[in-house]
Amino acid sequence: MTTTSSTQDAPHALNASANAHGSVGVVHTQYMHFDEPLPLVSGQTLAAYDLAIETYGALNADASNAVLICHALNASHHVAGVAADNPDDIGWWDNMVGPGKPVDTNIFFVIGINNPGSCFGSTGPAALRPDTGKPWGAAFPVLTVEDWVQAQARVADRLGVKRFAAVMGGSLGGMQALSWAMTLPERVAHCVVVASTPRLSAQNIAFNEVARRAIITDPEFHGGDYYAHGVVPRNGLSVARMVGHITYLSDDDMAEKFGRTQRAPAAGGAYHYGYGVEFEVESYLRYQGEKFSKYFDANTYLLITRALDYFDPARETGGDLARALKPATADFLLVSFTTDWRFAPARSREIVRALLQNGQPATYAEIDAPHGHDAFLLDDARYHGVMRAYFSRIATGLVPTEREVQQ
Amino acid sequence: MTTTSSTQDAPHALNASANAHGSVGVVHTQYMHFDEPLPLVSGQTLAAYDLAIETYGALNADASNAVLICHALNASHHVAGVAADNPDDIGWWDNMVGPGKPVDTNIFFVIGINNPGSCFGSTGPAALRPDTGKPWGAAFPVLTVEDWVQAQARVADRLGVKRFAAVMGGSLGGMQALSWAMTLPERVAHCVVVASTPRLSAQNIAFNEVARRAIITDPEFHGGDYYAHGVVPRNGLSVARMVGHITYLSDDDMAEKFGRTQRAPAAGGAYHYGYGVEFEVESYLRYQGEKFSKYFDANTYLLITRALDYFDPARETGGDLARALKPATADFLLVSFTTDWRFAPARSREIVRALLQNGQPATYAEIDAPHGHDAFLLDDARYHGVMRAYFSRIATGLVPTEREVQQ
Repeated sequence: MTTTSSTQDAPHALNASANAHGSVGVVHTQYMHFDEPLPLVSGQTLAAYDLAIETYGALNADASNAVLICHALNASHHVAGVAADNPDDIGWWDNMVGPGKPVDTNIFFVIGINNPGSCFGSTGPAALRPDTGKPWGAAFPVLTVEDWVQAQARVADRLGVKRFAAVMGGSLGGMQALSWAMTLPERVAHCVVVASTPRLSAQNIAFNEVARRAIITDPEFHGGDYYAHGVVPRNGLSVARMVGHITYLSDDDMAEKFGRTQRAPAAGGAYHYGYGVEFEVESYLRYQGEKFSKYFDANTYLLITRALDYFDPARETGGDLARALKPATADFLLVSFTTDWRFAPARSREIVRALLQNGQPATYAEIDAPHGHDAFLLDDARYHGVMRAYFSRIATGLVPTEREVQQ
Repeated sequence: MTTTSSTQDAPHALNASANAHGSVGVVHTQYMHFDEPLPLVSGQTLAAYDLAIETYGALNADASNAVLICHALNASHHVAGVAADNPDDIGWWDNMVGPGKPVDTNIFFVIGINNPGSCFGSTGPAALRPDTGKPWGAAFPVLTVEDWVQAQARVADRLGVKRFAAVMGGSLGGMQALSWAMTLPERVAHCVVVASTPRLSAQNIAFNEVARRAIITDPEFHGGDYYAHGVVPRNGLSVARMVGHITYLSDDDMAEKFGRTQRAPAAGGAYHYGYGVEFEVESYLRYQGEKFSKYFDANTYLLITRALDYFDPARETGGDLARALKPATADFLLVSFTTDWRFAPARSREIVRALLQNGQPATYAEIDAPHGHDAFLLDDARYHGVMRAYFSRIATGLVPTEREVQQ
């Protein structure tokens, strides 16, 4: 993986091909190089690194309309629009971000950043070490949510954003938004936390550990230095993705989507009585696992699941989440989904309770949706209605953008 | 693995060391050899096979007090008491079966059978093929719940049991009890189905498929013929067990047992920032996985998870469970546990509804217990109270046993 520090487009010019309502259009990834070492929570340091970013919309005159979108495990800086180098590559939150969409790029300047440690253009375990010229591999430091926030803050500095109109994210992205509000409160006006949790449960950690064991015990893992062997722990990564995928969907959703439908039944609808693909759900999971293992880096999978495990802001306050949240000055929106059993509504309610205990402004929406954890990525009318209303409220506090004045 | 057809003790003499209340004492595994080929649902045939069994208590004069206990994925014929060859090996349902226990061996003659395809003494993939003298491996036929019922019926014939006072089991064992009641109704007076389901959901199948992929893609699996290579797909089997184990426990139970407790924190309680064991739950799961991979056969894991997947008695009746259950003449007891998310109470209620629709006698108990699916193996007062009451009712219909008459 090579990264460069060249900026292919000026950030403010990205909307050239955008529709008035709809997609932000074709977008180019920009790369920022950082020479200032990034001190990490672990005590290690990331000496120098590159970050891949995308921006949508225009920053207004007083730089008050910026929205940071933080990504979850397998997503990236490519939040919206069509990737310039691949017309099939639509941003992972394209239904949420764009002209006329809930996070309206006619009003907001939206930033997506691929976190360090990831594998979509930012420096991660697959990147080349400056000192050796070889991939980092197992030597790449473990990063935390708090480290990502610091890295993202530097991007904001470069883009001239002192204070975000909103920092938002779903799942692990929601943890980053939370962390922003707690650690850099003066830079966050609104904090939007979707389908997230203040900390992983033992069961969450357990699923992550299964995934990591599958990867680490794959003989092709080679202690994390598989790049040097010209191989990839594809089987382990595939199993890791399969188990993860099950936790993103609800039981009901899987019943609805797959039920017990057979993939290619024998004559008369009979079973094959073997261990190949028998049911649709098996075929689907295998496909998801294989596809993922071809584009995702196994070391990044370890790193990001560990960042999930470690996130626990109330750890510093003896488990008192309200006290941990006290420094935050943002207005909060929390959203959860009824059938999300990975980060169930009870987890979001924990955050809401802590905020209310502190008298901090918080809006909470529990969306009755059948799609489990994945619901945060889907276009649900009630969910998007809540997001649209909240961002409209944010917009009323903004100085109008140049475009709006022109209209 | 070698099996013999010698009976080490006469079935009725096994209680020699039993207490009046408590354990059935030291028990010896008995082996039965079957020369009559077993025709299988798959169309294949098991030409000849051995089964490992244990019995507890004494069969009464009219052979009306026999109870068959069917085992789940990783259990065996060793239901109760202390294994003669290993004083640490207590039967898996020892809290349920014994003198004075809910299934009282002072009253009932209890039979445990290791199903064919398993790996605790009965003929399975690790056993030697009579024709080649080498382990069956990948050539061992896929067995189903219905096949197990037929194999168990032959054991009953040998023991002189025409009709069981009760056939019972938990989880996969409950499926066997259900299948007995439907396929051999004249041989089942009472059917006790605990923490079970009339069929796996897509999510259940998905977890099984993850486990199978972990095993099959382990390079040590060698297409199922790892015996010939002198290896075992230990890593894959370990990951399979870890993912299974998570589904046996409830989220709350894991929170209670492990929470986010660190295993051996660094100075000041700090994290290690690495991919080794950091949390207690990881240590526990790794231990469970490794332990399991040392005693359980990987091919058996495939076979039994597949038997789970395939079980779907209402498949023959176009999904109409009530119609599938109509042939049953047994009195039913169904028990489920509130925090069991593997086979949730709703699954048991499906069976209850179908029985009530047919006007068939059914008792249903939904036990408020925190221990998830594993609750069926634990000594919970309300649960055991229900079981005790139900078996007392069965006992009132029996001719007194010889022992009771002597007392």
